[in-house]
Amino acid sequence: MLQSKTFIPTLREVPTDAVTASHRFMFRSGMLRRLANGLFVYLPLGLRAFRKVEQIIREEMDATGALEIKPPVVVPGELWKESGRWDSMGESMLRVKNRQNGDFVVSPTAEEAFTAVIRDELSSYRQLPLSLYQINTKYRDEIRPRYGVMRGREFVMKDAYSFHADETSLDKTYDDMGGAYRRIFKRCGLSVIPVKADSGAMGGSGSEEFMVESDIGDNTLILCGACGYAANVEKAACRPDYTPRPAPEEARAAAASVPPLEKIATPSVRTIEELSAFLKTGAKQFIKTLIYRAVNAEADFPGKDGARLAEHESSGQKRNAPGPLGEAFFAAAIRGDLDVNEVKLAAVLKATEVSLAADADVERITGAPVGFAGPVGLGLPVVLDETVTGMNDAVTGALAKDLHYRHAAYGRDFEGWITADIRTVKAGDLCPVCGGALYEKKGNELGHIFKLGRKYTKAMNVSCLDESGKSIVPVMGCYGIGLDRTLASIIEEHHDEAGIIWPMTVAPYHVIIIPVRYEGAMKLAADTLAAELQARGVEILLDDRAERPGVKFNDADLMGIPLRAVIGDRNLALSPPCVEVKRRDEKESRLVEAAAAAEELSGLVRAELERLNR
Amino acid sequence: MLQSKTFIPTLREVPTDAVTASHRFMFRSGMLRRLANGLFVYLPLGLRAFRKVEQIIREEMDATGALEIKPPVVVPGELWKESGRWDSMGESMLRVKNRQNGDFVVSPTAEEAFTAVIRDELSSYRQLPLSLYQINTKYRDEIRPRYGVMRGREFVMKDAYSFHADETSLDKTYDDMGGAYRRIFKRCGLSVIPVKADSGAMGGSGSEEFMVESDIGDNTLILCGACGYAANVEKAACRPDYTPRPAPEEARAAAASVPPLEKIATPSVRTIEELSAFLKTGAKQFIKTLIYRAVNAEADFPGKDGARLAEHESSGQKRNAPGPLGEAFFAAAIRGDLDVNEVKLAAVLKATEVSLAADADVERITGAPVGFAGPVGLGLPVVLDETVTGMNDAVTGALAKDLHYRHAAYGRDFEGWITADIRTVKAGDLCPVCGGALYEKKGNELGHIFKLGRKYTKAMNVSCLDESGKSIVPVMGCYGIGLDRTLASIIEEHHDEAGIIWPMTVAPYHVIIIPVRYEGAMKLAADTLAAELQARGVEILLDDRAERPGVKFNDADLMGIPLRAVIGDRNLALSPPCVEVKRRDEKESRLVEAAAAAEELSGLVRAELERLNR
Repeated sequence: MLQSKTFIPTLREVPTDAVTASHRFMFRSGMLRRLANGLFVYLPLGLRAFRKVEQIIREEMDATGALEIKPPVVVPGELWKESGRWDSMGESMLRVKNRQNGDFVVSPTAEEAFTAVIRDELSSYRQLPLSLYQINTKYRDEIRPRYGVMRGREFVMKDAYSFHADETSLDKTYDDMGGAYRRIFKRCGLSVIPVKADSGAMGGSGSEEFMVESDIGDNTLILCGACGYAANVEKAACRPDYTPRPAPEEARAAAASVPPLEKIATPSVRTIEELSAFLKTGAKQFIKTLIYRAVNAEADFPGKDGARLAEHESSGQKRNAPGPLGEAFFAAAIRGDLDVNEVKLAAVLKATEVSLAADADVERITGAPVGFAGPVGLGLPVVLDETVTGMNDAVTGALAKDLHYRHAAYGRDFEGWITADIRTVKAGDLCPVCGGALYEKKGNELGHIFKLGRKYTKAMNVSCLDESGKSIVPVMGCYGIGLDRTLASIIEEHHDEAGIIWPMTVAPYHVIIIPVRYEGAMKLAADTLAAELQARGVEILLDDRAERPGVKFNDADLMGIPLRAVIGDRNLALSPPCVEVKRRDEKESRLVEAAAAAEELSGLVRAELERLNR
Repeated sequence: MLQSKTFIPTLREVPTDAVTASHRFMFRSGMLRRLANGLFVYLPLGLRAFRKVEQIIREEMDATGALEIKPPVVVPGELWKESGRWDSMGESMLRVKNRQNGDFVVSPTAEEAFTAVIRDELSSYRQLPLSLYQINTKYRDEIRPRYGVMRGREFVMKDAYSFHADETSLDKTYDDMGGAYRRIFKRCGLSVIPVKADSGAMGGSGSEEFMVESDIGDNTLILCGACGYAANVEKAACRPDYTPRPAPEEARAAAASVPPLEKIATPSVRTIEELSAFLKTGAKQFIKTLIYRAVNAEADFPGKDGARLAEHESSGQKRNAPGPLGEAFFAAAIRGDLDVNEVKLAAVLKATEVSLAADADVERITGAPVGFAGPVGLGLPVVLDETVTGMNDAVTGALAKDLHYRHAAYGRDFEGWITADIRTVKAGDLCPVCGGALYEKKGNELGHIFKLGRKYTKAMNVSCLDESGKSIVPVMGCYGIGLDRTLASIIEEHHDEAGIIWPMTVAPYHVIIIPVRYEGAMKLAADTLAAELQARGVEILLDDRAERPGVKFNDADLMGIPLRAVIGDRNLALSPPCVEVKRRDEKESRLVEAAAAAEELSGLVRAELERLNR
């Protein structure tokens, strides 16, 4: 391709809102332009790189046996009502009314659409397993889009959904997908960190996120340098403080020498910091107690067959019948220097949603303003973090304004309802696998694989007959990768101050040919080299513009084409005539005989492709 | 691909709403499923054919020098407000409010987005001409989607937009695009009829529609069997009835022997048919006069510098200043057996919209109920069809209830304001080129190329400097093809009662291999042939299902794979062993030596591809 015949509007200036390398270089190299906040246009250079990523993903999906289909981008709201996500997806889902007042959705994800396709076709277990995928436009109405396509509103996602007669079959496809994801990222030249992730609102158990390290990451990763343990902080574990955990009676015995529980006045002291300062003692001596509101908690409650916590439920939702609760309140208690991990807490409660109770609820439940809750005498089921089971001389709220207890002892003064690991792991905690010191990194999620279970197939009435003619509900997996974000992450990992340094597999062109001037012998040599390279299947860009060599070199560096061949009068005048070859990822260039340049360059291209695709 | 490893759910039954061959066979062959009214899912077989069409279009676009980009599907409403189409697009455009109450549009077309991209990048005429295109999701909220993907709500369109410093450059690209379109349809195996089309609401002059004949077509085509003249009825011309047209004074002289204008009572006679019956004379003796409401008419009005028809404008929009009118009323008069072509009328008036006036307006303007309008004494500018200029003894409305004139003569009793061709051409009229008899066909539009002029570049403030440093506004062209509709049209043109008969270029697979049973020697021979064909670049589907041969043959016919190789025990037992080869478009099969089958089949594939791609 002649550069004058394509449309690569490079920029010297950095767009003012471009704080990340990928955002900056995608704009400056002419890959991308902005149409509106979070909405972008890929220009020809950007689209070429985008398509390479797309093709790698497609090849690896096909290799797993997944089949590509093309559902619409706009899907009926009815499907989302069937699954129950019409209500739970929140405002990030773009909803549309059509002219007949029907509800539609600009797809943010496609569990419902794929499940609907399967539902009408499935009759026998013999049709399973079946994996279907699409590479298609998605929309999420981000409140604050930023970092270019890293967090845009419209984006392209590869999303695959697999359907299985049983969990064993799901496990196999899940593992295959995990392997495919590792190959996809390797082929894209990306160093990903696969982490155990919480499956959050997507439901089900068993999931893995593929993260790249990033200063602007949405996620906090907990990593172990010693054994390679990696987890999203939402789900990260650490070595417990007590193994085995003391039982209440052991704790009571240990508390024998502790002075009795005592109320102390703590005027206007509410936070752990204020309490630390007031009592001149460390945060580790305190029991922090928080009141949470949980939705649809299903844990095995005390008094389950009786009143089932009816007294703690919010006024409008009193219920005595068995079954999951609507909205209910719980307390969580943890050592004062630690934070409660709400995702872990939700898992313990088997709740779909957990959030701090509103101040008014806290006051009603604890009988005191916010800041004076404690596990002693609290009329609410208390989830104790396991750290609390070792505390037998602690300070904690006394359920009254400006009052705390000291000398509170687990087993003696209070017990919990459930004891579990609900702490937020942080740097310095010990690796749950090897005991090494954990550290934190920010990360961006590029891909995610889940075992969804039967959430959608059950809600949407999918069934088929098993070997014995019995009706079964298939089990599902789902597997997503964001293409735009993957592309941007490649640039984040592969750039220098001058521009992008594309891995060969995803480079918009393999080789850029720069004649110092596109005329005479230099034009002839450039055209010849271009033709020879194209005959070898190498993708070339030939900079035929009437620009100064310095401008051309800068643009080539900015665009990040992996190999550069400069054709100048002086080197052509050598005997034999030469061209200057330079790798974008190296500083030094070298002279190559013009007659051998095509072979040399195509060899380098091939070698790089093989190295990355291996 | 083994058939058991893909997902091709063929159906014996015809979906009840599938009245067209393409709709029926796309469902029955397992290419397509319905997600909601007008919203479809391409399954693997359908997507393969879809991608072939897409790739042909991409190759031909690239060959014109057009550059592919990827704008978002959801675009800001602001752009549509800038161009003025936010108001003019009507309800078929799907509008969305995002969470911040911003206006967005699910793109029905992309003049605005492409113009916005160009606007920010263009500085010099040297960057022009520039053609950009996308192959992307579009949405039009059809009131009544039907015929499967032939008239769906969401669809994929290739839309290209070209930008030029002057009309000469636009003419060249327009011609190149016309050539590319002809090649695209030929390569897809489609017989298209390129017709001169009216450019309608898209603005500008010079456009061509690429039509396929279809009983369910939206368009009426006017065709000449003698010279090949083809036009959309909206714009079709015919040989005029009078050449040269008589001037009013000539007409007056010719009317000398005609009795004077006379009022006759025509109680309750309003339509041409009623009048014919009442007066016992032919419709050709009548002058039909209709009152139209026109929006933004720009024609050169009588008394332009004076009151400018202020008395005829609707009450709320009186104006005296020069410039285009808002809403105004006009009359159109035509011979009684003919119909007024509103598109031609709008062109004559240079109006953006023309529609029959409401009854109340007609009564106010003519002073009589609907049915008694006539050109004699009408206080409204009258556009005369040229047929009327030859009428000097006509019957026409007398602007009073139950009254008509007879002996009305052009030039004597009335004149027109503008005389022009505003008739709707119909079968039997004479070809404007050669005088042959015209005939009608229904057609579906697959593609459309337009010269847009400066409508968008002007409205959206695009400019650049010309050679002399002067600011110019670029001129635009636009070029669309509907992919889904093209695919469906291929099936409409290539099928029989048993199923689809794919042209090789767009077939989802080139060859289907059917072992009578997938076991033993038949399995070995099938696998061997598959491997040999794949090594030759032939795309194969191998029916390895445990189905009866009849079921397999029926499915193969339904899917329409162009070549079929049947591998059976009996033919393998021949010496030398043979397989049965059959073309989908022929009735008879023939035996081919098994050892030579791959060469034979790949030769047929190559020959067909070459024939179509030539």
